[in-house]
Amino acid sequence: VNFSDRLFGACREKGSAVVVGIDPDPLLIPRSYFPDPFPEINRREALARGVVDFAGDVIHAVHDVAVAIKPQLAHFERLGAPGIAAFEQVVQLGREAGLLVIADGKRNDIGSTAEMYAAAYLGARRLQSKSRSEAADSFESLLAGAEAEGPKADALTVNPYLGWDGIEPFLDRGEGATGLFVLVKTSNPSSGELQDLEVIGDRDGRGASPELALIGGSDGPYSVADVVAASLERASAARQGALGYGPVGAVVGATYPAELERLRRLMPHVPILIPGFGAQGGTADDVALGFDSNGLGAVVNASRSILYAYRAGGTVAEASRRAAVEMRDALSAAIDRRRPV
Amino acid sequence: VNFSDRLFGACREKGSAVVVGIDPDPLLIPRSYFPDPFPEINRREALARGVVDFAGDVIHAVHDVAVAIKPQLAHFERLGAPGIAAFEQVVQLGREAGLLVIADGKRNDIGSTAEMYAAAYLGARRLQSKSRSEAADSFESLLAGAEAEGPKADALTVNPYLGWDGIEPFLDRGEGATGLFVLVKTSNPSSGELQDLEVIGDRDGRGASPELALIGGSDGPYSVADVVAASLERASAARQGALGYGPVGAVVGATYPAELERLRRLMPHVPILIPGFGAQGGTADDVALGFDSNGLGAVVNASRSILYAYRAGGTVAEASRRAAVEMRDALSAAIDRRRPV
Repeated sequence: VNFSDRLFGACREKGSAVVVGIDPDPLLIPRSYFPDPFPEINRREALARGVVDFAGDVIHAVHDVAVAIKPQLAHFERLGAPGIAAFEQVVQLGREAGLLVIADGKRNDIGSTAEMYAAAYLGARRLQSKSRSEAADSFESLLAGAEAEGPKADALTVNPYLGWDGIEPFLDRGEGATGLFVLVKTSNPSSGELQDLEVIGDRDGRGASPELALIGGSDGPYSVADVVAASLERASAARQGALGYGPVGAVVGATYPAELERLRRLMPHVPILIPGFGAQGGTADDVALGFDSNGLGAVVNASRSILYAYRAGGTVAEASRRAAVEMRDALSAAIDRRRPV
Repeated sequence: VNFSDRLFGACREKGSAVVVGIDPDPLLIPRSYFPDPFPEINRREALARGVVDFAGDVIHAVHDVAVAIKPQLAHFERLGAPGIAAFEQVVQLGREAGLLVIADGKRNDIGSTAEMYAAAYLGARRLQSKSRSEAADSFESLLAGAEAEGPKADALTVNPYLGWDGIEPFLDRGEGATGLFVLVKTSNPSSGELQDLEVIGDRDGRGASPELALIGGSDGPYSVADVVAASLERASAARQGALGYGPVGAVVGATYPAELERLRRLMPHVPILIPGFGAQGGTADDVALGFDSNGLGAVVNASRSILYAYRAGGTVAEASRRAAVEMRDALSAAIDRRRPV
């Protein structure tokens, strides 16, 4: 099964494109999740336990409204080793609730190092498992077994600055069908400094990048983000699942709707993860531009507006569920408005 | 004190520009560092303990030959929470040995999330500490205290794809003077796919990027890497220490010596971290192109050629020390060959 079939199959089944970002900030979580008085030592462990309990309540409340959770790793890394243990528990809770898990780490490195990130968050490389066991001595199998001790995510976010050999190691991992979402156009104010630069090929004078020739029917000018988009389109077009999408996804922020619409056209086989909805300013009509004419092709993340909805009233469970339902319905209505009659 | 003064002060004092990359791969570490028979459960903890013991032996052996260690985070993350605990122990061992610590995580995210990565690896923001304590309620101080439980690094590697607001949160962290090394031109084969693209400004027709105007006396054509380089030069030129460099560094791979020479000229105030020496193919004469006429301005990382030198004979301590001494002397000789008489 292809990752995109798992993702968009869940979207169809649930009538939802909602991804709940798990960005747990202890300052925004109700104090009742933490011990009082707070311990003098091992404070990170006490915070990590509260984070897991809080995330668990949200995950339970939204499990049939959302299709995936997206735990953001910085929020766990700030708590050190107890934070990483909490991250693994949140991944496990998401899986048990029937949600896909997108680990948001924006990892990037080269060759064997990228392999280690991939093994850590997505699992062993599927295609290598046979040759691996043939070649393996006992210590190698032991190491693979140790790595497998942690629960794995279904997809990971990846930064493309190192080029394709920083992306390729994240493909085809794990026992199931994993995916990845590569940063193309991010939602932050300064994202254009690099991503919007107009490119005219490389300095060796090879004219337009060979990747750009793959963007059919578009005449440019092309940006750095377009070059990344073209490489993702090529990879996912070659690995299409039953629903017409591949496992190599893109991150395109809701805060740049014109770019979202354009990139949707440039990457017809690439699943898009859209952050920036809600608290960052993207509207339902903005993000609807990332969907195809079947109402598929994208999922939309919201973090703070769901996690911390309780601050406007209600319990964490009630408020997060209500916010997720409202988001699901707003997305569906906006997508329907754009579909051909 | 400026981070670059701490770094290059150590280089002067030790007559060395050697950074030892701590990339611990259990498959390459002597089996004697791990229990035999190996436990059936908590295997990641047993591996992590061996990793710390091995790294500790190397750190102790090279402490007066190297100026810094560069623990690479993927190698620790692959072991989950026990791996992160091991990472913190390695950071602590490096500090206790009088070495600077460069955490190699290539982290990148936006706004408040980048702040969390910075707090996790470098410490609280220096300039905010006063206003923070004024505004703080008790829980906020408690959280800051919990984050401070882990030992912090002196610098972190950062990926620039998100633009300046993905870099700025990593400045001015911690109690001491921290630094960062931003990826400019990486050492891997496909690094040129993005980094070498020739740019002519942004798609809004604003001509050459404003950043490029800062590269004095250079006529282009300019690459994506040059745009990043220009932003780092601007930031470090505005924050110069006594030795003429700022805290905002660049990563430029030894495997592209012509680029290294060119980028050294474009970024006269930017400390350069040069990976790719040794196992990846960069020679001492290649990396010498990254140094200024005073023999400062850069440090050079080697990982496998030092860590696993024991495989050619000797104990881990003897072999890693010998490899570090040889590297130090080869670098010094190559730098001397390039200096004006």
